Amino acid sequence: MQIALKEAKAAQARGEVPVGAVIVSAAGEVLAQAGNRTLEFKDPSAHAEIVAIREACQRLDSERLIDCDLYVTLEPCTMCAGLISFARIRRLYFAAYDEKSGGIEQGAAFFAQKTCHHTPETYGGIMESDAARLLCDFFRAKR
Amino acid sequence: MQIALKEAKAAQARGEVPVGAVIVSAAGEVLAQAGNRTLEFKDPSAHAEIVAIREACQRLDSERLIDCDLYVTLEPCTMCAGLISFARIRRLYFAAYDEKSGGIEQGAAFFAQKTCHHTPETYGGIMESDAARLLCDFFRAKR
Repeated sequence: MQIALKEAKAAQARGEVPVGAVIVSAAGEVLAQAGNRTLEFKDPSAHAEIVAIREACQRLDSERLIDCDLYVTLEPCTMCAGLISFARIRRLYFAAYDEKSGGIEQGAAFFAQKTCHHTPETYGGIMESDAARLLCDFFRAKR
Repeated sequence: MQIALKEAKAAQARGEVPVGAVIVSAAGEVLAQAGNRTLEFKDPSAHAEIVAIREACQRLDSERLIDCDLYVTLEPCTMCAGLISFARIRRLYFAAYDEKSGGIEQGAAFFAQKTCHHTPETYGGIMESDAARLLCDFFRAKR
């Protein structure tokens, strides 16, 4: 999660919403790390989780990340929850909860739906205060 | 939707699940058209809708597709529903309903959630039987 926070800070420095994500293999190797790049890439799908998952898939030459874990600094949105399930992520660790747009614990609560065909073990609130502070500072500066 | 069906058939010819998508501008211009490419690209996010939205965003040099419409041969999944909302798609037209994995009319029903901050006008069942037949034939041949 330390690496994910570093990626979040790097995203902030680029003017993006500060969210970072890391994919770790079963052997503990970092397969991919990324921050938000929606503005830079002009791509609304370029959330940190999606950029990291796509990169890890390229690295493993597979459209599934069996036995891989995802660390992300913010509760994934509904779109990212969908991809996390498709990619067969084993464990999801996230930091801050996202009441406004989260797709795990609120709203769509995708992993609890019958249309979800793979549910990762999920742990929220890991280093929550660090990630939340980063996001609060970012949005306060924006206003 | 005719073009989307053609993209779905092209996807099938590549061994992918036959789903196709088209983005049309307010002026009626086709900005992007795509089929599923998850296996070819080794990318679980490469659903037809996502490939088409990303391409249209690149073409418009914008992370939002204001006043653009999306035609897709299958009810979008939860992941795609999320991206459709983020991209600010104006109208969504889809063909077949997807009871197993749809994210619009069932399961997450994302557009009805308070975590969804842009909801397109949505029309399901357009040329439904053509799209459904394509999918049924594909999965029957797979079994």
